[in-house]
Amino acid sequence: MAVGPGTLPEFYPVAGVKLGIASAGIKKPGRKDIVVFELAPDARVAGIFTRNQFCAAPVVVSRRHLGQSAPRYLLINTGNANAGTGDRGMDDALKCCQALAEKAGIRAAEVLPFSTGVIGEPLPVDKIVNALPDALAGTREDRWAEAASGIMTTDTRPKGASVRIDLDGHPVTISGISKGAGMIRPNMATMLGFIATDARIAPDLLQSLASELGEKSFNRITIDGDTSTNDACMLMASGQYSGPEITESSPQLPKFREALRQVFMDLAHAIVRDGEGATKFVTIDVRGASSQQEALDVAYTVAHSPLVKTALFASDPNWGRILAAVGRAGVPDLDLRALEIYLGDVCLVRDGGRAEDYSEERGQAVMDGEEITIAIDLKRGAVHETVWTCDFSHDYVTINADYRS
Amino acid sequence: MAVGPGTLPEFYPVAGVKLGIASAGIKKPGRKDIVVFELAPDARVAGIFTRNQFCAAPVVVSRRHLGQSAPRYLLINTGNANAGTGDRGMDDALKCCQALAEKAGIRAAEVLPFSTGVIGEPLPVDKIVNALPDALAGTREDRWAEAASGIMTTDTRPKGASVRIDLDGHPVTISGISKGAGMIRPNMATMLGFIATDARIAPDLLQSLASELGEKSFNRITIDGDTSTNDACMLMASGQYSGPEITESSPQLPKFREALRQVFMDLAHAIVRDGEGATKFVTIDVRGASSQQEALDVAYTVAHSPLVKTALFASDPNWGRILAAVGRAGVPDLDLRALEIYLGDVCLVRDGGRAEDYSEERGQAVMDGEEITIAIDLKRGAVHETVWTCDFSHDYVTINADYRS
Repeated sequence: MAVGPGTLPEFYPVAGVKLGIASAGIKKPGRKDIVVFELAPDARVAGIFTRNQFCAAPVVVSRRHLGQSAPRYLLINTGNANAGTGDRGMDDALKCCQALAEKAGIRAAEVLPFSTGVIGEPLPVDKIVNALPDALAGTREDRWAEAASGIMTTDTRPKGASVRIDLDGHPVTISGISKGAGMIRPNMATMLGFIATDARIAPDLLQSLASELGEKSFNRITIDGDTSTNDACMLMASGQYSGPEITESSPQLPKFREALRQVFMDLAHAIVRDGEGATKFVTIDVRGASSQQEALDVAYTVAHSPLVKTALFASDPNWGRILAAVGRAGVPDLDLRALEIYLGDVCLVRDGGRAEDYSEERGQAVMDGEEITIAIDLKRGAVHETVWTCDFSHDYVTINADYRS
Repeated sequence: MAVGPGTLPEFYPVAGVKLGIASAGIKKPGRKDIVVFELAPDARVAGIFTRNQFCAAPVVVSRRHLGQSAPRYLLINTGNANAGTGDRGMDDALKCCQALAEKAGIRAAEVLPFSTGVIGEPLPVDKIVNALPDALAGTREDRWAEAASGIMTTDTRPKGASVRIDLDGHPVTISGISKGAGMIRPNMATMLGFIATDARIAPDLLQSLASELGEKSFNRITIDGDTSTNDACMLMASGQYSGPEITESSPQLPKFREALRQVFMDLAHAIVRDGEGATKFVTIDVRGASSQQEALDVAYTVAHSPLVKTALFASDPNWGRILAAVGRAGVPDLDLRALEIYLGDVCLVRDGGRAEDYSEERGQAVMDGEEITIAIDLKRGAVHETVWTCDFSHDYVTINADYRS
């Protein structure tokens, strides 16, 4: 199940960014499970990674390589996360980089590896290495849609976003793909995102855009509160467009940032819409908080409450469960009589109890929709935060009781 | 579903503590939904209450009354939590106390009210008041088993514990009942516990025993991470046994505390065994922590992980999910190469990866059991904490997508 139509957009190719896809047969014979990004020599790359302390070997290697060289290749495999694999996992990740580097005539440190899939099984290095010639031979700028499918694990559909804008007469393209459906939570989950633009961006700005936009999109989505060991979101800029370098002081920056923000947001929301077993796309909007931490504590407590999530699955406007979740979020000296809780535009809670004008019919009408907003106004300050989540269904249990992730 | 046999023990009556049961028809006609405890005049009562900031009206009233008078009656209803009901809820709780007080010839402040059930619906005061004569007329010391059934909500079975010990020639009885199956989490959930002894206990000691033993039992169990607005655990001491008052310096205290601890523990574990949809009883044992907070953060992160809980439901020794949960628990500078994770007596993780002597068969053998221990040694210090939880099954979703709690 998934929420909304979820069809892939038409992808604009990004000059200087080629994609190759191959089948290594890691979990299933014939399945496309290897994706390669080939970047033009002057491309710049920034990234954000999982905050899980058990980060997987490819995360450790990618982070290190990113600090050493300008990357020329990204190598992604699905079917095996190469996580919880100790020293051997590090060796295996490096072997894959080395093999690709030899074939492409570059250095191993110019390759960033990414893995997603089962935790704790040794990476089948030979299978991956054997598939590299095929992946490298077929790199083209127009294979985004195939790549979107090639990085899927328990995803039910590929995820992508693509926009083209004009910056003072210079067309700029931004295209991206993402994957992830479970173990999704703030601070990157079994989530991979790859976003590329042909704009030329100053290196520091590129990293600050990745961090800032990743924080407000990929780091604000949660399916089940679990954070994977492997998440990564990479932002690539090939620099091949016809305009000038974009820096912190460029007048073009606001328009570019907004277009990039939209791509990050679409890719992050696509993950929630395809959340394991999801039937609802839920926005949790916390206003009037006195700090960001407080706003996020309330939002995530509601977003992670299994009782709220099962009520959403049942389309049950069970406001008591939302209220109970807010009450246990750990906000000190919460004024229960001041705060307000809304379901869509229907006020649920006011003056410390059910709103006088609330009716079950009005609550039900909102709950019957596929896209639902729960808004909580704490009336303590001016901080506002939003997180996105989905409901908790029978299919979530089925998927996770069957799948060895 | 539930774990283990779960038959009620034979209850020893507690001198000075009488129980009455009646049917008010709050949710279903004919259902026994009112329980009354009648205490001897010299009885002492201590209690611990929910830490949810949206605590329900009866919790506010019970806490206040407990500070004003020695309680003579406890009045418990199921079917309606009288929570999220604002000022009217307070009035309703007081009206019930007042009605009981008039009938019993005492003051309203000598009645402690408790409610559990649906949140946000007005309490049907008239139905409760109409059932009081029946409840009060039938109080006897031998109705513990009926009371255990009378306080159930989504529980599939009644829960009780009863012991009799000898303190220097003076027999002492401790009997107790509890309820709760969902919305259970540290700091009291939709959990009610009523424990009575005929020992005479110094008032300060009684409260410190309730706090200390409640902390290590009822406040260490979690079904779904949700905390109810209504939880309460009351410890009553009638003082009618033949021995001396037990104080902090009594030589009898250690033996009495141990017997009481066992009753608290049995009642708390019974709630987990009857967790909504539970098929496994899971002990999460964290050792080698450098602080209590750190130990509890790790234990609850594992206990609340939907991915760990669905793997437990599937009897899948999916150690990668346990490792990922430990890694995101927020322990600073965790030494991934030092820590060890065990499933029963089988080592899963050592030296930063899967233990060399681990085999799927050995892990599976532990997972196939109904009672499972996950032990995590952080190798950072000497602090040890234990929490108890259950797995996450299809039935959990079914129960909570159907039940308006």
